[in-house]
Amino acid sequence: VKLWGGRFQQRTTNAVESFSESVSYDKKLYKEDLAGSCAHAVMLAKQGLMSEEDRDAILKGIAEIEARIESGNFTWRSDREDVHMNVEAALTDLIGEPAKKLHTARSRNDQVATDVRLWCRNAIDNLVKKIIALQIALVQLALDNEGLVVPGYTHLQRAQPILLQHLLLAYVEQLERDAGRLKDCRCRINFSPLGSCALAGTGLPIDRFMTAEALGFTAPLRNSVDAVSDRDFLIEFLAANSIIAVHLSRIGEEWVLWASEEFGFLIPSDAVSTGSSIMPQKKNPDPMELVRGKSARVIGDLMTVLVLCKGLPQAYNRDLQEDKEPLFDSVETIGTVLEVTTEFSQNVTFNRKRISASLSAGHLDATTMADYLVNKGIPFRTSHDIVGKAVALAISKDVELSKLTLEELRSINPVFEDDVYEYLGVENAVKRFQSYGSTGASCVKEQLQYWCEKLKLV
Amino acid sequence: VKLWGGRFQQRTTNAVESFSESVSYDKKLYKEDLAGSCAHAVMLAKQGLMSEEDRDAILKGIAEIEARIESGNFTWRSDREDVHMNVEAALTDLIGEPAKKLHTARSRNDQVATDVRLWCRNAIDNLVKKIIALQIALVQLALDNEGLVVPGYTHLQRAQPILLQHLLLAYVEQLERDAGRLKDCRCRINFSPLGSCALAGTGLPIDRFMTAEALGFTAPLRNSVDAVSDRDFLIEFLAANSIIAVHLSRIGEEWVLWASEEFGFLIPSDAVSTGSSIMPQKKNPDPMELVRGKSARVIGDLMTVLVLCKGLPQAYNRDLQEDKEPLFDSVETIGTVLEVTTEFSQNVTFNRKRISASLSAGHLDATTMADYLVNKGIPFRTSHDIVGKAVALAISKDVELSKLTLEELRSINPVFEDDVYEYLGVENAVKRFQSYGSTGASCVKEQLQYWCEKLKLV
Amino acid sequence: VKLWGGRFQQRTTNAVESFSESVSYDKKLYKEDLAGSCAHAVMLAKQGLMSEEDRDAILKGIAEIEARIESGNFTWRSDREDVHMNVEAALTDLIGEPAKKLHTARSRNDQVATDVRLWCRNAIDNLVKKIIALQIALVQLALDNEGLVVPGYTHLQRAQPILLQHLLLAYVEQLERDAGRLKDCRCRINFSPLGSCALAGTGLPIDRFMTAEALGFTAPLRNSVDAVSDRDFLIEFLAANSIIAVHLSRIGEEWVLWASEEFGFLIPSDAVSTGSSIMPQKKNPDPMELVRGKSARVIGDLMTVLVLCKGLPQAYNRDLQEDKEPLFDSVETIGTVLEVTTEFSQNVTFNRKRISASLSAGHLDATTMADYLVNKGIPFRTSHDIVGKAVALAISKDVELSKLTLEELRSINPVFEDDVYEYLGVENAVKRFQSYGSTGASCVKEQLQYWCEKLKLV
Amino acid sequence: VKLWGGRFQQRTTNAVESFSESVSYDKKLYKEDLAGSCAHAVMLAKQGLMSEEDRDAILKGIAEIEARIESGNFTWRSDREDVHMNVEAALTDLIGEPAKKLHTARSRNDQVATDVRLWCRNAIDNLVKKIIALQIALVQLALDNEGLVVPGYTHLQRAQPILLQHLLLAYVEQLERDAGRLKDCRCRINFSPLGSCALAGTGLPIDRFMTAEALGFTAPLRNSVDAVSDRDFLIEFLAANSIIAVHLSRIGEEWVLWASEEFGFLIPSDAVSTGSSIMPQKKNPDPMELVRGKSARVIGDLMTVLVLCKGLPQAYNRDLQEDKEPLFDSVETIGTVLEVTTEFSQNVTFNRKRISASLSAGHLDATTMADYLVNKGIPFRTSHDIVGKAVALAISKDVELSKLTLEELRSINPVFEDDVYEYLGVENAVKRFQSYGSTGASCVKEQLQYWCEKLKLV
Repeated sequence: VKLWGGRFQQRTTNAVESFSESVSYDKKLYKEDLAGSCAHAVMLAKQGLMSEEDRDAILKGIAEIEARIESGNFTWRSDREDVHMNVEAALTDLIGEPAKKLHTARSRNDQVATDVRLWCRNAIDNLVKKIIALQIALVQLALDNEGLVVPGYTHLQRAQPILLQHLLLAYVEQLERDAGRLKDCRCRINFSPLGSCALAGTGLPIDRFMTAEALGFTAPLRNSVDAVSDRDFLIEFLAANSIIAVHLSRIGEEWVLWASEEFGFLIPSDAVSTGSSIMPQKKNPDPMELVRGKSARVIGDLMTVLVLCKGLPQAYNRDLQEDKEPLFDSVETIGTVLEVTTEFSQNVTFNRKRISASLSAGHLDATTMADYLVNKGIPFRTSHDIVGKAVALAISKDVELSKLTLEELRSINPVFEDDVYEYLGVENAVKRFQSYGSTGASCVKEQLQYWCEKLKLV
Repeated sequence: VKLWGGRFQQRTTNAVESFSESVSYDKKLYKEDLAGSCAHAVMLAKQGLMSEEDRDAILKGIAEIEARIESGNFTWRSDREDVHMNVEAALTDLIGEPAKKLHTARSRNDQVATDVRLWCRNAIDNLVKKIIALQIALVQLALDNEGLVVPGYTHLQRAQPILLQHLLLAYVEQLERDAGRLKDCRCRINFSPLGSCALAGTGLPIDRFMTAEALGFTAPLRNSVDAVSDRDFLIEFLAANSIIAVHLSRIGEEWVLWASEEFGFLIPSDAVSTGSSIMPQKKNPDPMELVRGKSARVIGDLMTVLVLCKGLPQAYNRDLQEDKEPLFDSVETIGTVLEVTTEFSQNVTFNRKRISASLSAGHLDATTMADYLVNKGIPFRTSHDIVGKAVALAISKDVELSKLTLEELRSINPVFEDDVYEYLGVENAVKRFQSYGSTGASCVKEQLQYWCEKLKLV
Repeated sequence: VKLWGGRFQQRTTNAVESFSESVSYDKKLYKEDLAGSCAHAVMLAKQGLMSEEDRDAILKGIAEIEARIESGNFTWRSDREDVHMNVEAALTDLIGEPAKKLHTARSRNDQVATDVRLWCRNAIDNLVKKIIALQIALVQLALDNEGLVVPGYTHLQRAQPILLQHLLLAYVEQLERDAGRLKDCRCRINFSPLGSCALAGTGLPIDRFMTAEALGFTAPLRNSVDAVSDRDFLIEFLAANSIIAVHLSRIGEEWVLWASEEFGFLIPSDAVSTGSSIMPQKKNPDPMELVRGKSARVIGDLMTVLVLCKGLPQAYNRDLQEDKEPLFDSVETIGTVLEVTTEFSQNVTFNRKRISASLSAGHLDATTMADYLVNKGIPFRTSHDIVGKAVALAISKDVELSKLTLEELRSINPVFEDDVYEYLGVENAVKRFQSYGSTGASCVKEQLQYWCEKLKLV
Repeated sequence: VKLWGGRFQQRTTNAVESFSESVSYDKKLYKEDLAGSCAHAVMLAKQGLMSEEDRDAILKGIAEIEARIESGNFTWRSDREDVHMNVEAALTDLIGEPAKKLHTARSRNDQVATDVRLWCRNAIDNLVKKIIALQIALVQLALDNEGLVVPGYTHLQRAQPILLQHLLLAYVEQLERDAGRLKDCRCRINFSPLGSCALAGTGLPIDRFMTAEALGFTAPLRNSVDAVSDRDFLIEFLAANSIIAVHLSRIGEEWVLWASEEFGFLIPSDAVSTGSSIMPQKKNPDPMELVRGKSARVIGDLMTVLVLCKGLPQAYNRDLQEDKEPLFDSVETIGTVLEVTTEFSQNVTFNRKRISASLSAGHLDATTMADYLVNKGIPFRTSHDIVGKAVALAISKDVELSKLTLEELRSINPVFEDDVYEYLGVENAVKRFQSYGSTGASCVKEQLQYWCEKLKLV
């Protein structure tokens, strides 16, 4: 019999019962649910809504239930619908009458909102730690590859030479903003719905500030209808996760490219590669393909909660039950892709020989040559045009820019002098960078130091 | 040790192994995987690529594996990655050497594409059956409610009176197109990738037409690269499901509205309602709220596969492994919401008293009054304007149109005569409809008959 | 001829040119583009990369271009591709040689990132103002409707009586978090990419802190590759907009419901309603339907940028050009729906008669009756059960709870005494609420005062 | 004054009017709207609901309006809301009274559904033509590159050698299914809503079969509520477009990769490439990046209509007005990306030298070596393992498999004999393929012939 069954004269059909139950997945919230119940019971006793004996019986019962759950000796029953009713009913089985007082001045509406907020708060803390772990791995990879120059790309065409360290720190920057978004979201999450009851609050003399404080919330939410109706915090969390997922999909793409035979820049160790059931020579960078692919489900999860909440009137609607699975999936996926990307970056080496051999192609020094002309007083746009012609000449002769003779260069424009060769070639080009945030050696060194300190490496 | 491990010198790390494994969910494909292997073995033997003894050993082994799986005596091992490798390795454990010949002229790339297509084909057949069951339930509900007039709405404002049957048949029409989309999709799915191997086909003398026929496919796919690369059929399937989900979300919304105190038109039985943990009087139409809400995840699943496939080069990429969970989730969800909507519609009654009482409000006969004027030779646009004024008058006097006196009507326009009252009132209004597809009694009767025959009711 | 055409020997085809151009929409960024160029020119001159005469010529030319654009006398040319090239080329037409120096140490990659960040910053400031305007309108509506009790809903079933003010303040709370998200996003946006050039920075002695300060940025971005590659800030912005859109879709849904004949709670004025081309009596709450519907495109825009960025390697890729139209559409849509919701809420009245008449149905006082029993020492769960039975009795007799006789109540449980009637009836029920954040009169008054002060109403 | 204004006493506010108007974009439907009105007028006259004179005046007036629109001499007025009201009001301005009869037995609800279906039908026909044009371009490209062997990839790792023709035909296959989906969708679209009026049909004696036939529809839709409520056909269309977009994004990705310096396989002509404003040497394959990127908006458009329709009750709701912009955007985008991909493929050459040089790396013949062993009677799984070891040996010696000595091979397994060299090397490997649908020369030739005939090439 359902705990809400007073006015009902028929049993719920099996199909509806199994369609409506949520305990199969919301039992994941058990820790938060128990913590919330403890805080609530203590408050009820303090406010005279429950005796101290009842409170103690409840606290003891909850401790027992927690122990049973964690030891695998708790039977979750789908006829008891959800984690809340499972706990309350089990507590009643265990301690009898006092358990029936626990739901005083409380509804599943505020209870689930409380549980989910607590769960998200914790999830964010864990994800932030994993972001930091990945940042550390990337900075470590940068430290291990000092001085390595790689082609920088735009449009996947070679653009300018950059330090590998510079590229790796770009990822670190992106992850830093990802952590920032999670932290901002955490601030907005950390308010207590508990005591909002069904939607309107209660006439019983409860103290919402007391439970809020006990559960580590900043304060109670100000409006009970809002407290049980809205899932904006959850959408925000899943949006932040989606951005992380997109960032990692980009690393995934880049590393898959770099691990290809054609690029040949990155060598994943056998420990993070997999083979083919048919082609014996294959060694595939599967983890990073999956990291890229898993962005899809995280985005799908976000889409789910947005569609879910669209057009619902206040206050609680049962649709909202569907918020949990995408939340759990998103958080678990992001946790895993962060970990796997970390592990992958700890298991790669860069193929300096292939990289070095590649630098001669693509005229990566063309922009530096334009800077040379600017230094000679030629307006940039004119410089760009002159260098364009020099590149066309180099292509037609199938040589690098630095292999054009001074005569050839001067045939394009007489401004060229012998010192142009100090700007040509990738080695020279990369040395020239000096602007803040650029790939110049000292700039990158400074940035690296910034991150080492911030991440407490060194 | 992995079956593809020949060239590898390090073991995959645990994190990567558990990240990459798919057997935890793709074991759902076991039946299709076994069927594919049987067809493949028979073909290999026929083509002289395997002895008849080996073939028989394999067929017997596969039968044994199937029996074990279905009796719960099969151990799925995540170190064996996926359903394919689990089966092959278990077969090797079971029958030894012959099993090692099964993967001749086959790759997991064509194998999984084959399994998934078979699975989808079957899933579509099941969903079509469930659509028909829901259509039958709706038609039955229509049959049970002959003659019941309800307000028809646009903009959720009362518009014109319609027969409830007419509204229910609108749902049935929508479901019919849903089934049509699934069937079209099935036709495109039903081609065999088997024998496309990794991506290029094989140099061994296999017969793809033979395996295609054995598995009930229309024909083999024409291009091996296409066969292993593309998941368009799966996206199409999930798109068709999304449209079903949207259709059902609309029924969900409508029935939730109708079950509200304010509408009061629909009474769900206690067997398909649920209560509140705090508010003793509540009886909520939860199943239809969840039906509405579950559209979100189905749309999310579609989004996942679209994002997944975006921007992947040919041929197989590991990202594609992520196609299965959204597929399974979408199909399971659609199956369930169809069933629950069927069950719900078998457990509702319409509150004729409330409905009937409601019909007097909202001037549902206004358009019929305009038709009256058109019949009198007044251009429609002018008629519309005249009736607009009559409505304004009726509102100001707080009466129905039919309660305006002829004098009052003639004060607006002298064209009104006594016979106008034959067009006023909901009863008269609903009787007037006669156009094909309209809510006119004989039109609806004809449609109902069409559906009864088509669905083999009566 | 393109400004980048030095090495090219063929003209771009018309189809590619019109496919690639972005000026038709990115001209919207002209103000930001001009501001960025001014700051850049001043810096170049300060750093000795341009003479003061050239700088002055450029600043004068830019002022002239701005004047022409704003007076409609500027010809945007799609063969000049984008806003940046249009401006630079027009400047060259206007002032000749000095214009060719403007692109020194700058690329369109950092330029567009700068323009877009400036534009977003401004857009956020505008949206926040519009959010505040809507909050004010809602609070004003609350002030105008003091004491009005309405049914509160869960599952669209009547739940408990609440003050209309309480409901309106729930919206205000949601909007407040919306503004908070936008502000957090603004903080992350407000860093300068300018001087990151193509992707690697530059070898010329520029001062990025100077341009950052001139443009009101907090600081330059730390990493040039990151600066030109990432659009996370834009996704975050569109995610924040999507949450606003969902919030407003919920108000839209609620008000469309309330404006229906069945609810009859809300009367939009004719000024914010529209009619039907065929049904003369119709008066539809179209603006709120559209507010609800427009959430779809805002979510679609978010989806677009997520899909766009998925799987792109560093650094700039041309795909990113597609970020602007969804950005513009999202911002414009959110701006409009905020305004229209504000205007709508200034043009509605609540139908006190209909609302009041409705309160008797739905047993809104059942939970208060349970609280009564709790006060009598009955455990809540038992109280819930007792009240459930009372409700069933009331339904069977088709009366309100308050109309059950004491005898009838005592037949369910002897605990009932005469004072129960002080808890029954909506008037009594609503008076009982007292918890923080509840719908109790003094709680709501306090909240209303909080908002009046915060929004500088009074 | 609005044409529906009879009962209204206030003018719509400017903000609401400009928020609600749709003529700024739905004027795109003018041709369909006029055609629908002509068919409707002819039918009304035939049914005696309008005189022949009125009909003729209307037809003449409509012809005049069409001429004005097409010559740019028609003023679209946003105070007239939408294309329908603009046309009707302009017709009234033009011909007076008869125009007022046109809206007899018609509503904007069925009118817009009719217009949109007609528009979609035409749009599909155009898109199918563009798909065929792209297929032809790809087949032509295949014909121009007979015999060219390229590496085939899985996981972006080199897998097996394939004919370029084979890869190009894979795209052609995918496009063929895309066309099939559009055609199926067209069948479901091609039913007439006209005469469904607001939602309930009409009491006037219209002939819906007549208008359906006149407009080229298969038949009238069977249910008037369904006819004005549902947009499933439009979602299906946008889903089909999304799959096309994903297909083209994959070609885009592949060609961007192939055009990179690292691959170096594909050379786009200057006519379909663009340069950099700062880096003079750059030549970017922008069109294909944009083709890839534009998949995002097409997916976003689909998402928009799904979210839009979710949870709307029957029948017409104003939200549905928002279906048009995503529809138009999706269709226009798909049209353009098909055209541009066609043009791009007509402007590329393959770098045979780079491709040929690349074939020696990646052990593309490893699977053929395994086939060799299978032919020797070694079970495939064992063969795979042996070849895996051979590959490891080749890697350790930094040679191709074909450069391993027989002795070295036999040290791994004595089964190797001299004839193994007939299977090694890419040339040998590619010759071996023979299965249906494989990359074997004769198989591909046959497929090519199939497509030449189907596409009427040669």
